Amino acid sequence: MGATGSIGSQTLEVFRREPDAFELVSISGGTNVNELSTIAKEFNVRHIGVSDDHSASALRELVGPDVAIEVGAKGLEVLSSNADIVVNAVVGFAGLPVTMSALKAGKRLALANKESLIAAAPLVEKVRSTPGAVILPIDSEHCAIHQALASSTSSMPYPDVRKIILTASGGPFRGWSKDRLVGVSKADALAHPTWSMGPKITIDSSTLMNKGLEVLEASALFGIEVDRVDVVVHPQSVVHSLVEYIDGSVIAQLSMPDMRLPIAYCLGLPGRLDHSWGKIDFTSGLELTFEAPDREAFPALDLAYSAARLGGAAPAWLSAANEISVEAFLQGMISWQGIVETVSAVMDKYVPTALSSIEDLLENDANARRLASEIIAK
Amino acid sequence: MGATGSIGSQTLEVFRREPDAFELVSISGGTNVNELSTIAKEFNVRHIGVSDDHSASALRELVGPDVAIEVGAKGLEVLSSNADIVVNAVVGFAGLPVTMSALKAGKRLALANKESLIAAAPLVEKVRSTPGAVILPIDSEHCAIHQALASSTSSMPYPDVRKIILTASGGPFRGWSKDRLVGVSKADALAHPTWSMGPKITIDSSTLMNKGLEVLEASALFGIEVDRVDVVVHPQSVVHSLVEYIDGSVIAQLSMPDMRLPIAYCLGLPGRLDHSWGKIDFTSGLELTFEAPDREAFPALDLAYSAARLGGAAPAWLSAANEISVEAFLQGMISWQGIVETVSAVMDKYVPTALSSIEDLLENDANARRLASEIIAK
Repeated sequence: MGATGSIGSQTLEVFRREPDAFELVSISGGTNVNELSTIAKEFNVRHIGVSDDHSASALRELVGPDVAIEVGAKGLEVLSSNADIVVNAVVGFAGLPVTMSALKAGKRLALANKESLIAAAPLVEKVRSTPGAVILPIDSEHCAIHQALASSTSSMPYPDVRKIILTASGGPFRGWSKDRLVGVSKADALAHPTWSMGPKITIDSSTLMNKGLEVLEASALFGIEVDRVDVVVHPQSVVHSLVEYIDGSVIAQLSMPDMRLPIAYCLGLPGRLDHSWGKIDFTSGLELTFEAPDREAFPALDLAYSAARLGGAAPAWLSAANEISVEAFLQGMISWQGIVETVSAVMDKYVPTALSSIEDLLENDANARRLASEIIAK
Repeated sequence: MGATGSIGSQTLEVFRREPDAFELVSISGGTNVNELSTIAKEFNVRHIGVSDDHSASALRELVGPDVAIEVGAKGLEVLSSNADIVVNAVVGFAGLPVTMSALKAGKRLALANKESLIAAAPLVEKVRSTPGAVILPIDSEHCAIHQALASSTSSMPYPDVRKIILTASGGPFRGWSKDRLVGVSKADALAHPTWSMGPKITIDSSTLMNKGLEVLEASALFGIEVDRVDVVVHPQSVVHSLVEYIDGSVIAQLSMPDMRLPIAYCLGLPGRLDHSWGKIDFTSGLELTFEAPDREAFPALDLAYSAARLGGAAPAWLSAANEISVEAFLQGMISWQGIVETVSAVMDKYVPTALSSIEDLLENDANARRLASEIIAK
């Protein structure tokens, strides 16, 4: 799901490399019907989801009568319950139906959409126990943690783990002071030093909000409270994350930055696919450095920890306010620093609220988005 | 076993930290009866091994009539079959009876003595299948590999592993050319940059023979042919080794250099002891570098690979010749470069020989030692 985006395209590359291992049964995309049609023809896909009726009509013209077409969130739900492995590469909160539907149907969910897990953590927790349901993280950091936790002899909440250490590249503005960050441009923020990703996550990387969301994601995924989740800046993006055990031993997962590796890992388990993605050459002067994040210049990180400690709907507010703010920045409506200022202003208005249903979540999500839009308009 | 040496002393430190978790039932040492007596009193040990009758009499004076005393290799065999966990920290080939006896008795062998495993690989292989018998490596590199292999979903010979990558500090002479290495002193060779260890292993680190022996050890321990074992120089000794999987993913184990961590790991499994040894601070400018070893300046590495490919008694010859040569260097009889030159000259005389019994091994060991002594005398 989300086949035409960055992760979607790289998933297709893994399929091309392993033509006999997988059958692509369905795909979804927003409104990019030309690309969906091209993918459908290449992989002989018989079931496609699009975001609206207009796109559905346009797609029908391209693929003919033999392909089933689904529309909107309901369509995503149908598609996400009809495969052994569901790759959720939908961008933002729109990925929630995919996450919920795949888990309810007891499928393996290869999750690249962190927002759904973060915003809906209490709801996801319930459906996650469906027999057969399992979440495998495509995020390079969480996929690293998943591999590093293989050395644990315990299970959730991992009492033999002292802490999870997420690595952050530091983004394009690593080492910049708060003052220097005033007035950075869209082009500056989109120029990520080590990873080539979609625009939303690239902007989130530049503010460190992406790392903040990953702290929440790690906590939800592995059942480890956020105070056992640390962030360390590692500019080379070779060590994708680490787990420190209670005896002082640290297990890390490394590769050159290449999202096809975590994708292949999530698809291939319990085995590993026999093709090296992101192979490291240790003999040509590899140098790995680590440093503390600058929490003053990048306040998004502390905002995320606060939201995690508040729990309830707070992570949903954080994620929703951030989506609106990033969109506003990309459209030139607010400054780069305005992104986190807006999110912070929204969080100031948060009143502790439990999340017990999708309706609760949708209401909270809408409230946070409305508040963010109002603040931006001012 | 080997309680008075470097690994032995550090094992006692782990016991002091975990007074309720372990009972020290027996110890052995060579001739250092004063220290053995001190340890015995502190830990209330009732069974002690020494190397000869003279030491046994001296020890009897110190510990009184209530402590049982064993002598020589036979004594080590008795002691090594009488505990749930046997730590083999005996230096050199003399550790063989401990390895064999512990495995035959179906015990957990925490192995710091690599020579016994390397020289006697075909014999160890046979007794290793005794129900209950398991080898856990105290060597920091192999302990790292043991932890990194937890991410494998296969078992020996690990088809999902592309290669094991052993890290080497490079020793005190890293970066030195072959010419510069002429005439290095004993003091230079004993000044290891990152690890504080006994003299034999410190000299072996300076020649990279230690890493060569570790290549053989890794191959024997994990059932992985030497051509899937690589060596990379990593001067900081923080990444203790790595495993590269067939999908390109690399799993590494890290800590500050501290042998108490692998000791505690081997003692504590299946759990981890709740005390951090060698804890890493990732926020104070940690820098990790990697480079290829210089195989011309340090020919010991290629000698070890050759011995591994020859198999049979060749690794035993390599290890025995090296023990004699290191001893000769420590006594000022040969130069530092003479160590590996002597080993190489001994290996030139090796005639392929299978190892099917301890007698075969002892004969080959004696031959290699005699040859090495003859070459040194010349």
